[in-house]
Amino acid sequence: MENCSIVRAFEIVGTRSAMVVMREAFFGTRRFDDFVRRASLGEAAAAARLRELTADGLLERVPYQEPGQRTRYEYRPTAKGRALFPVIAALREWGDTWAAGSDGPPLRTVHRDCGSPVRVRLRCDEGHDVALGELEIQPGPGLIMNEPAG
Amino acid sequence: MENCSIVRAFEIVGTRSAMVVMREAFFGTRRFDDFVRRASLGEAAAAARLRELTADGLLERVPYQEPGQRTRYEYRPTAKGRALFPVIAALREWGDTWAAGSDGPPLRTVHRDCGSPVRVRLRCDEGHDVALGELEIQPGPGLIMNEPAG
Repeated sequence: MENCSIVRAFEIVGTRSAMVVMREAFFGTRRFDDFVRRASLGEAAAAARLRELTADGLLERVPYQEPGQRTRYEYRPTAKGRALFPVIAALREWGDTWAAGSDGPPLRTVHRDCGSPVRVRLRCDEGHDVALGELEIQPGPGLIMNEPAG
Repeated sequence: MENCSIVRAFEIVGTRSAMVVMREAFFGTRRFDDFVRRASLGEAAAAARLRELTADGLLERVPYQEPGQRTRYEYRPTAKGRALFPVIAALREWGDTWAAGSDGPPLRTVHRDCGSPVRVRLRCDEGHDVALGELEIQPGPGLIMNEPAG
């Protein structure tokens, strides 16, 4: 498959630094200095990643000005960026279960209204929970194969 | 955060080739030659990735023998590997929506029992669907901060 959506997505967000920048954006980080500090990135790496994620439309740059200071920019997740949250949540859930240290997970994500832990689930549009063995993969409209069929 | 589960997960599966090998494993690919062909990887790259994913416990090597042939091995997803499916599904869903070509998504994932499209959702243990704005992040037992508090 030449045009795999997984690969296309991975080409945009498939670096460690893109993931930690988006993680921080979801946690509410907006300003350059805070990204540098909280994502544990160097200034040059943070600037490059923020620029790329903005160019790819996952973050938007919004000007702000504090009294007596020059105009600066903060970075906010766009709809395209917010839509990445399930990827981050699924990675974290897998990491919590299969790659966490002996102390357990560093953070818990809970539903604010009821306090229960939040998990990533697969569900179909009819409202059924779907287990891995109940999935069927079908060709879609954009399928392009590497090799001629037959 | 020194021990972020997202980063830990990413260190194990955060390469394009690991993603396409796991994608193929989910699609039912088991044998080396098929991984090479379907994942569009070179033989050396496919062998290296299968070896790493086996060492990390996402795939297991199972011997098989066809009449008159030497023993060969196939690769099957373990529980740890199967648990990665939501990550792949979330990446694909994001790629389908935000990075697909004009022809639409190359594949559709449906619920075998009812034929409806399957999507990744966030849900809490009380059974509520959870929107991004309803999440709360809390410190977990394994939290280690970079900087002293206060």
